[in-house]
Amino acid sequence: MSKLSFNKVEKQNFTVTYIGMFEELDKYIFEHPNVPSTPGKLFLKNHLKLTGMEVSINKLSPGMEIPFYHKHKENEELYIFIKGKGQFQIDGEIIEVQEGTVIRVSPEGVRAWRNNSSEDLYFIVIQAKAESLSGENISDGIGVGEKLEWPDSDS
Amino acid sequence: MSKLSFNKVEKQNFTVTYIGMFEELDKYIFEHPNVPSTPGKLFLKNHLKLTGMEVSINKLSPGMEIPFYHKHKENEELYIFIKGKGQFQIDGEIIEVQEGTVIRVSPEGVRAWRNNSSEDLYFIVIQAKAESLSGENISDGIGVGEKLEWPDSDS
Repeated sequence: MSKLSFNKVEKQNFTVTYIGMFEELDKYIFEHPNVPSTPGKLFLKNHLKLTGMEVSINKLSPGMEIPFYHKHKENEELYIFIKGKGQFQIDGEIIEVQEGTVIRVSPEGVRAWRNNSSEDLYFIVIQAKAESLSGENISDGIGVGEKLEWPDSDS
Repeated sequence: MSKLSFNKVEKQNFTVTYIGMFEELDKYIFEHPNVPSTPGKLFLKNHLKLTGMEVSINKLSPGMEIPFYHKHKENEELYIFIKGKGQFQIDGEIIEVQEGTVIRVSPEGVRAWRNNSSEDLYFIVIQAKAESLSGENISDGIGVGEKLEWPDSDS
């Protein structure tokens, strides 16, 4: 587990945190007995008290790679690449990734990735239990009748 | 539903898509009978055949807002702000958001947001069923014994 001291505000129905600018993500070091120490990987579930997903925010330096293949027991994963370039590998197929590349991986997919470019690679990884979500995209939302109000300001 | 024609590759255990650079997100227009037409909002569940989460990638122009409050039936939400500035409102509390702000909202939280700045606001919204995920962050992952291999190249 990374040792974190970022600011956090917890209320009844939400938790807010500020993790800093993405280029400073190296300050978060993921440590776990089963994997090599990983700078630039910040898991959010425990810190934000998420109950339906695990999410990590990632910065991978040039030349770095995840040094093993892995798959999952029951969680689907989504990888959203937001900046930089690199390569992703699933079931032996190679995918060039960059800002705007999005990859869904079933639990069974055997995956690994690396930054084989000369710039930092930034991406977000989301895990959720496969087959757990029902419904069409916005069907879970419920409008609230109150009139929308914002404090007077025009920053 | 937005009418999409982006490239997509589907294989047994994954789906890959390239949605383009985030600054071009306006080309995706979310349309649904219950909400105003929304440029710059791209939902991914149906297109990628996600089964455990709904995810949207969002660009909100200066001066734009979601014009109503909403909450959820059973889904937890996570908002990850990746660029720009704006304001988020939950249960009447105002939160200034920017790159690195991350907000978990329980289904019951009454929420809205706006871009009251002079630059575009970019964020990712994830929905997953509350209480559906068990386990500590990486406990769902399983190492795969094969030796990691990449094609010879040093781009």
